[in-house]
Amino acid sequence: MKSHTKHLTFNVPARMGFVRITDEVAEEVRASRVQEGLCLVNAMHITASVFINDDEPGLHEDYMRWLEQLAPFDPSPEAYHHNRTGEDNGDAHHKRQIMGREVVVAVTDGRLDLGPWEQIFYGEFDGRRNKRVLVKIIGE
Amino acid sequence: MKSHTKHLTFNVPARMGFVRITDEVAEEVRASRVQEGLCLVNAMHITASVFINDDEPGLHEDYMRWLEQLAPFDPSPEAYHHNRTGEDNGDAHHKRQIMGREVVVAVTDGRLDLGPWEQIFYGEFDGRRNKRVLVKIIGE
Amino acid sequence: MKSHTKHLTFNVPARMGFVRITDEVAEEVRASRVQEGLCLVNAMHITASVFINDDEPGLHEDYMRWLEQLAPFDPSPEAYHHNRTGEDNGDAHHKRQIMGREVVVAVTDGRLDLGPWEQIFYGEFDGRRNKRVLVKIIGE
Repeated sequence: MKSHTKHLTFNVPARMGFVRITDEVAEEVRASRVQEGLCLVNAMHITASVFINDDEPGLHEDYMRWLEQLAPFDPSPEAYHHNRTGEDNGDAHHKRQIMGREVVVAVTDGRLDLGPWEQIFYGEFDGRRNKRVLVKIIGE
Repeated sequence: MKSHTKHLTFNVPARMGFVRITDEVAEEVRASRVQEGLCLVNAMHITASVFINDDEPGLHEDYMRWLEQLAPFDPSPEAYHHNRTGEDNGDAHHKRQIMGREVVVAVTDGRLDLGPWEQIFYGEFDGRRNKRVLVKIIGE
Repeated sequence: MKSHTKHLTFNVPARMGFVRITDEVAEEVRASRVQEGLCLVNAMHITASVFINDDEPGLHEDYMRWLEQLAPFDPSPEAYHHNRTGEDNGDAHHKRQIMGREVVVAVTDGRLDLGPWEQIFYGEFDGRRNKRVLVKIIGE
């Protein structure tokens, strides 16, 4: 069995933003030389997501507006008890649960086995600093 | 290490619908001859889900009503900027994020290691055409 | 390839509650003797979750309040058709979809490859009885 581990770093200049990372993940699959296996991609931070959806700017605007409705940014400790700790990112911990922590993608014939419109994204909900994404590939 | 890959195709006659696929996935586990491993099942389309929950029609009605509240169908480009592209399925991309893209199930003693009520479902949010689900099993 | 399977049991005394299980999962990784691989942790019940987020009581209060807004407890069969079956836990099946069924964590150098604040939780939405969590580790 082969395995390959890579930690990628992202710094999103806004509080919320989505970054397409399909190419970076595909590069790690190539580096792993795994032909058949599984590829895990997960946010290592708890106010961020990795998810798969469409690379379409209008959809990304929709997601941001929708997440803001479901869990609005509000730094007050009344809105989010989490903010009693001195943090202001209670909302980000909620947005991340909607969008998910991780994706697992099949590796087939040495490549990510994605549908025609599937793109992998890093989702940031409390940005403006370095945050890490883990890519782990196992297989043969 | 063994691996096994299968693409299943589903065509749900309504816009939204859930199809139980546990038996189809179990058949692929048998075909893989994997005794101990992991089984990934994911939608290859970005307006569909694979999820695990109860095989109970009342619950499925509840899910559909709830998803319609959280992300109502609305073809207008004001409701969903994604619909500016000419699509009318902005809602489906949101519903899919709630229900998730994939499940990973343990394979133990050559079988899906599911709890007593766990059933695997394909969740369709923009149906009436062929769409694919990937099943990937790795192990030994 | 090595593999290791463990079913953990939890009994949460309230209807809703979160239990940190990182140490229990780490113990299974040690027992597996896997150095490089993947660790799946999933609820085997369909009214429970396994998720990764912060070990912070204020955040957990926020999650419970938020989930209660998104899918309020209501035993009536009008609120949830699922409750026509005689169950009163329709809400729990919805809360679990928000928080997710499972996490997959990389195993690197024989340890869970978690970010600094990542903690694994069992999320209960219909407690007061024994329920199981599956831990499956594969790798080498």
